[in-house]
Amino acid sequence: MNNFQFYTPTKVVFGKDTEGQVGELVKEQNCSKVLVHFGSGSVKRSGLLDRVYASLDAAGVSYVSLGGAVPNPRLSLVYEGIELCKKEGVDFILAVGGGSAIDSAKAIGYGVKYDGDVWDLYLKKEAPKAMLPLGVILTIAATGSEMSNSSVITNEEGWLKRGLNSDLSRPQFAILNPELTYTLPEYQTMSGCTDILMHTMERYFSHEMDTDLVDGMAESLLRSVMRAAKVLLKDPKNYNARAEILWAGSLSHNGLTGCGRVGDWACHQLEHELGGMFDVAHGAGLAAVWGSWARYVYKENVARFAKFAVNVMGVAYDYADPEKTVLEGIEAMENFFRSIHMPVNIRELGVELNDKQIEELAYKCSFMDQRTIGGMKKLAREDIARIYEMAR
Amino acid sequence: MNNFQFYTPTKVVFGKDTEGQVGELVKEQNCSKVLVHFGSGSVKRSGLLDRVYASLDAAGVSYVSLGGAVPNPRLSLVYEGIELCKKEGVDFILAVGGGSAIDSAKAIGYGVKYDGDVWDLYLKKEAPKAMLPLGVILTIAATGSEMSNSSVITNEEGWLKRGLNSDLSRPQFAILNPELTYTLPEYQTMSGCTDILMHTMERYFSHEMDTDLVDGMAESLLRSVMRAAKVLLKDPKNYNARAEILWAGSLSHNGLTGCGRVGDWACHQLEHELGGMFDVAHGAGLAAVWGSWARYVYKENVARFAKFAVNVMGVAYDYADPEKTVLEGIEAMENFFRSIHMPVNIRELGVELNDKQIEELAYKCSFMDQRTIGGMKKLAREDIARIYEMAR
Repeated sequence: MNNFQFYTPTKVVFGKDTEGQVGELVKEQNCSKVLVHFGSGSVKRSGLLDRVYASLDAAGVSYVSLGGAVPNPRLSLVYEGIELCKKEGVDFILAVGGGSAIDSAKAIGYGVKYDGDVWDLYLKKEAPKAMLPLGVILTIAATGSEMSNSSVITNEEGWLKRGLNSDLSRPQFAILNPELTYTLPEYQTMSGCTDILMHTMERYFSHEMDTDLVDGMAESLLRSVMRAAKVLLKDPKNYNARAEILWAGSLSHNGLTGCGRVGDWACHQLEHELGGMFDVAHGAGLAAVWGSWARYVYKENVARFAKFAVNVMGVAYDYADPEKTVLEGIEAMENFFRSIHMPVNIRELGVELNDKQIEELAYKCSFMDQRTIGGMKKLAREDIARIYEMAR
Repeated sequence: MNNFQFYTPTKVVFGKDTEGQVGELVKEQNCSKVLVHFGSGSVKRSGLLDRVYASLDAAGVSYVSLGGAVPNPRLSLVYEGIELCKKEGVDFILAVGGGSAIDSAKAIGYGVKYDGDVWDLYLKKEAPKAMLPLGVILTIAATGSEMSNSSVITNEEGWLKRGLNSDLSRPQFAILNPELTYTLPEYQTMSGCTDILMHTMERYFSHEMDTDLVDGMAESLLRSVMRAAKVLLKDPKNYNARAEILWAGSLSHNGLTGCGRVGDWACHQLEHELGGMFDVAHGAGLAAVWGSWARYVYKENVARFAKFAVNVMGVAYDYADPEKTVLEGIEAMENFFRSIHMPVNIRELGVELNDKQIEELAYKCSFMDQRTIGGMKKLAREDIARIYEMAR
């Protein structure tokens, strides 16, 4: 087991009707003005935003609002938010929505506390030193941004999608009410489930094998999410299944399932380029590349992939031919993705990639040949292009 | 799944040589004077305390010291610590040791910030409103106090052992180096493993059945701790097994395995009276009463006990006779306790209970007939006496 740090200071308030506590939770932060940041109109239409304002009013908290965060949240809105916060003297941000609203809020929070261009932080030109404190009301189980140290922003100039990880961005509190996720369309729900699975799988696929406890918890999380996703296909308002994936989403990306080992994360990088160029749903993009990635790298650690096949996918171990077990496990995962109507290749994602686009994606993904991606196998530009080819 | 809050702000720094970071971690707290609080002489003899002082000196942190915390930590030392802190203007406590040193430090921290008698807080006459901030260097995997909200203190007057739970007492940071636990005697190691198992089992034995994710993580934690304990019987300096139980100890009592359900906790209350009266090792005391408690209450929820038998103890489910599965599971757990040289009754704990003592224990444990204990079955004084009888 490797040395690690584990730091999850976010106070999680989980369950029915918990959004009514937001006024009091914000008030505890001793702030003078709040930016309420949200995404699409659905939080307005559902009445959630009105309930949030009512709770803030009742607690005597003053605030300004900024909507419009979209999936693959945009840098232009972040700039707008930074300007608004500075003008209004905002000292706390409340994100209401999913990963897009939260990640956009994190970027605004970094920008308010940074003298230069906030995009430079995402380009890793400098490390962030401060961020406005942040609270969250979550409306979709997916990115785990409500407890995580990460945010991902897309710069429309060049359609570059870049992530930034820093403990500064872990929210002060996160309100998680499963009922707020009842009305999500099936595609978004299943894309969210895939994102949750992948946050744990990116950590699980590691060469470190002496992590019995963390492996076991990761495997059980994966099995639970798959079970709950299948329930939600037929019964989208099943409270317990919504609750399972909502809590799994936070635990899958707060660091718990990665303690003591180096993860892989190649699939996230492969998807980031696709998402930046084609604006696809993040989870669906991950499903579209995972199988090809797995077949390209599994020989680096047959034992790890076999453990996944047996303990997560329920494949019988083939003692004479462990690679057969591995391939059955990969196929079983792809069959699961199909069963929840997720794509298992890029064409099914709705994108027809030509050779030139593959070259461009691989070039960008390798940071113009400046880096490799992946922990199981170090993938350079040519490897990346090969996986996009396999997955198209 | 019930509504819940999850709040674990403690920064965990885990792995080899991490105690060398203590000076910097304390310095980040911006305190002016630290109380270094520890237990037995072993932290002196091992050289750990010297390394801690060297790290604090290097960081320019000033401190005073107080040793002497014993298992079932005593109120008299707590009073001494409070006085010392007030005299010296201490504003941060660093506990170096196991649950005894940490719980004693928590009580001192409460006392410094409370005008009345700190014991009144443990008697629940008043709720604590503040506590001195606390950091921890852990030397035994057991109580989980390094991340938990709880502390347990014994008042020598009347030998009452009482716990106090408040989020105020979650440490700011916890340094966990598995190597610091290499020299623990087998009995303490196995007593610690039992305490870890029981912290999760107290949460697992619940009537709430719709907790698939949390159940799965709890079950895998229990299996991992049992595997690691068996490794440590033969190879006490096995780094990975020490690391597994050290991290499991924190996760077992920071709230993770209890999210969304009400736990039982009767065994802890039964043990607290034994520990208060006879000063036995906490984990061993838990092992001594668990089987009798389980046989007394299992009919309240056969499904829950059968799930434990199958998913944790590997018993085959008897579809025709689930109670048979339950009883096999209880026996398998007792056999595990025997295999790690833990007692499965009070006599094996080294205590010969007479009828009068049983009456006294039951009377105290029921808070003089003022409460029942347990979530699976509400246990009044007569039930408590019956379980002590079964277990003696």
